[in-house]
Amino acid sequence: MSELGITVKKNEDFAEWYTQVVLKSGLADYAPVHGCIVFREYGYAIWEKIQRILDERIKELGHKNVYFPLLIPEALLRKEEEHFEGFEPEVAWVTMGGDKDLGEKLAIRPTSETIMYYMFSKWIKSWRDLPLKINQWCNIVRWEIKSTKPFIRTTEFLWQEGHTCHETYEEAEEEVMTMLEVYRDLVENYLAIPVIMGKKSEGEKFAGALYTTALETLMPDGKALQMGTSHHLGQNFAKAFDIKFMGRDGEYHYVWQTSWGVSTRLIGAVVMVHGDDRGLVLPPKIAPIQVVIIPIYYKEEDKHIVLEYASNIKKELEEKKITVLLDDREERTPGWKFNEWELKGVPLRLEIGLKEVRENKVTVFRRDLLKRIYVERDKLYNKVLELFEDIHRTLYNRAKKMMDNMTTRVDTLEEFKRVLEKKRGFVVVKWCGERDCEDDIKAETGATVRVIPFEQAPPSGNCFYCGRPARCIAYFAKAY
Amino acid sequence: MSELGITVKKNEDFAEWYTQVVLKSGLADYAPVHGCIVFREYGYAIWEKIQRILDERIKELGHKNVYFPLLIPEALLRKEEEHFEGFEPEVAWVTMGGDKDLGEKLAIRPTSETIMYYMFSKWIKSWRDLPLKINQWCNIVRWEIKSTKPFIRTTEFLWQEGHTCHETYEEAEEEVMTMLEVYRDLVENYLAIPVIMGKKSEGEKFAGALYTTALETLMPDGKALQMGTSHHLGQNFAKAFDIKFMGRDGEYHYVWQTSWGVSTRLIGAVVMVHGDDRGLVLPPKIAPIQVVIIPIYYKEEDKHIVLEYASNIKKELEEKKITVLLDDREERTPGWKFNEWELKGVPLRLEIGLKEVRENKVTVFRRDLLKRIYVERDKLYNKVLELFEDIHRTLYNRAKKMMDNMTTRVDTLEEFKRVLEKKRGFVVVKWCGERDCEDDIKAETGATVRVIPFEQAPPSGNCFYCGRPARCIAYFAKAY
Repeated sequence: MSELGITVKKNEDFAEWYTQVVLKSGLADYAPVHGCIVFREYGYAIWEKIQRILDERIKELGHKNVYFPLLIPEALLRKEEEHFEGFEPEVAWVTMGGDKDLGEKLAIRPTSETIMYYMFSKWIKSWRDLPLKINQWCNIVRWEIKSTKPFIRTTEFLWQEGHTCHETYEEAEEEVMTMLEVYRDLVENYLAIPVIMGKKSEGEKFAGALYTTALETLMPDGKALQMGTSHHLGQNFAKAFDIKFMGRDGEYHYVWQTSWGVSTRLIGAVVMVHGDDRGLVLPPKIAPIQVVIIPIYYKEEDKHIVLEYASNIKKELEEKKITVLLDDREERTPGWKFNEWELKGVPLRLEIGLKEVRENKVTVFRRDLLKRIYVERDKLYNKVLELFEDIHRTLYNRAKKMMDNMTTRVDTLEEFKRVLEKKRGFVVVKWCGERDCEDDIKAETGATVRVIPFEQAPPSGNCFYCGRPARCIAYFAKAY
Repeated sequence: MSELGITVKKNEDFAEWYTQVVLKSGLADYAPVHGCIVFREYGYAIWEKIQRILDERIKELGHKNVYFPLLIPEALLRKEEEHFEGFEPEVAWVTMGGDKDLGEKLAIRPTSETIMYYMFSKWIKSWRDLPLKINQWCNIVRWEIKSTKPFIRTTEFLWQEGHTCHETYEEAEEEVMTMLEVYRDLVENYLAIPVIMGKKSEGEKFAGALYTTALETLMPDGKALQMGTSHHLGQNFAKAFDIKFMGRDGEYHYVWQTSWGVSTRLIGAVVMVHGDDRGLVLPPKIAPIQVVIIPIYYKEEDKHIVLEYASNIKKELEEKKITVLLDDREERTPGWKFNEWELKGVPLRLEIGLKEVRENKVTVFRRDLLKRIYVERDKLYNKVLELFEDIHRTLYNRAKKMMDNMTTRVDTLEEFKRVLEKKRGFVVVKWCGERDCEDDIKAETGATVRVIPFEQAPPSGNCFYCGRPARCIAYFAKAY
């Protein structure tokens, strides 16, 4: 098992531990293309789980799925200046079709605002066409110069991008917050990862947005990870793409827009936050296999008895919509299977041998606490549901405690630097909110503004860095 | 309504009719990118329906979904020579990342054999790793030189591509046929389109395959359309990519491979085959809206009564898993709504006015026959199910009759040419099966071998074209 299992400890070599877990659990593999991975079946199954949950919610809120072209003509991408400047350095360009040079370069979408909004300007005529609320599940390419890491930062990734147009600023604002809350619910209540919500600074907002809101969280190595963003685009793109509607007042107005997205990066966060020295630990709501059953017998004559008992349990749980795998492979020992499914982070393992059959019970092993309990057969289903909830809560609480422990309030630059170097994590300060100050802090310390929490009273006192009056409390960190 | 409705007749200007139906029903719009369309919400919803049906079936058969990179290094694409020659003319090449020239060009996948099989050679070690059965839903780019047509032929399209590796030729052959049958079931039993199944000729097979099987059907203009393909790849790619396994005999062997796919082209086929002069006609099983309810009232005081009755019906049908839209827009007249939902091809329309409420009945309009029936309220649900089945059957039979009528058996080249020019459709002949003969026929007549049906007795007599001994019955046609 030593080759198959994880050979380093999470708290000793986090980067190596992460890579081993991703590769050895079968989530992904490195592809022979700059910064790209293959989403293997186990990793893609988690993405499908996330998609199902989120897609349903997006549709309930009245958004419709669509699909726009992968390729964006350079002239379109250039239309909103700030947007183009922000994305140009990481665009992959198509310059040839067959053996012909194309007249105009085509960008592989780094995001779809420009190609979509060109069409919106044709579709939207009147206030009756608003709100326009669409969503797209697709692949995205950003030619990464920074070092890449499976799921967390890859040249190509998968995501959903929602795009909406509204009559008023306020309606767009409401949409921005509604979707941010949908993301919070997904991340906290399904992925069991706590987040801080708030606005991004000027330096960190989406290129072309009026403002960006985001979910931010901490990884166990103390680096921050952005988990999702929801942008108020104002009328910036509407003016660049001439998206106007005849209002209820009989006059033409530019629409107010939003866009928002989460990506396959979420899978990386789940690995980093919940995993342990044995491998993955998956929250029950997104685990592709929620329960694995390992039959245990030593004599051929016991096989049938054990397998029948196990099959009945599988059948019962499946009828109740739990995803169960009965691992009846004969070429592997129970111990080997234990290790494999622990590596793959299956939330519950049922161990079934002659003893369990005779006593009409089941041995249940929870992956999060690595503990066994002995459950009566006819109470199994309820116990499984209860354990799923408890596992979710345990994972969430553990992650919350970690995040809280790594969140430090400081008053001076000296403390700020010390925390960043030793303890890492979020450093919370009173801050002036100015772009020049933000740039200087980044240059001097490597830390960026991760998020400026919502609903805060303006702080008294001065900016920890530049000494100008403080205008907000801000979370800084080094980030992925 | 004249601007909104279709202004040409299907049998007078088929090409213009098709374009108008696609655009005006809201399935798609032209994008400002060479040969690309935007899948609008109504078109994408049909694709989602098809995906759900097929994805479930693919998974039931033991295939797992995965995702491989969009970009393929040129050297990988070149590894299987025939494959590269076949696809090179239509590859879109990425040559720049940001402002840097890439050392090696990257192809946007025209299909994923090469990038996948490079990985397979790393993953497959032993017969225990076989069969390997994966599937991928993704976008594909083929830089089209031929004229494009929404859904039918576009530079970018969406599809699924399945890829499997097996121990033996026979196992691979079984997989090829299993998936072809899955496609037949999808196309005939969900899209209501009859097909001919069989093998492709040497000239028409997939570049790199041992042989290709396909579903072929006819469009109302007499052109053939390939609806899906399933390839036996033999060991061609296995040898090029060195995909070997340790067999049960202790020796190393190359794997036997298959690949198979259907694309968003299917949506175009549904439009062409079933549509009529009023617009789309959608088969119930893939209609995003299966039933539309139009409330009809002239006085404000009747509104509540009619809407309450309509809402109850909507609720009942939705509880029984039927997709219903209650069109209660006040700014549109019932007549306007009739036209719009006919254009969008909704299979059943329920018209509900005071009369229906008083008599406890519902007026039901079927889109396929443009006929009304009057149904008792408490028999509505069963009647709807019955009508769905009957609509499906009617559409299928109508299409089958069309295909049969446009399938002509001929014995001589003269007849062959006459049929191709006048009547069009499939021309069925005794054929030698030789590559040179196939090329000559194509050069002289523009027709290609569409399919060589399975399970045929070898015909007596000679090839209609070259006079050598006939080896099969073949379906020729001009094709999209």
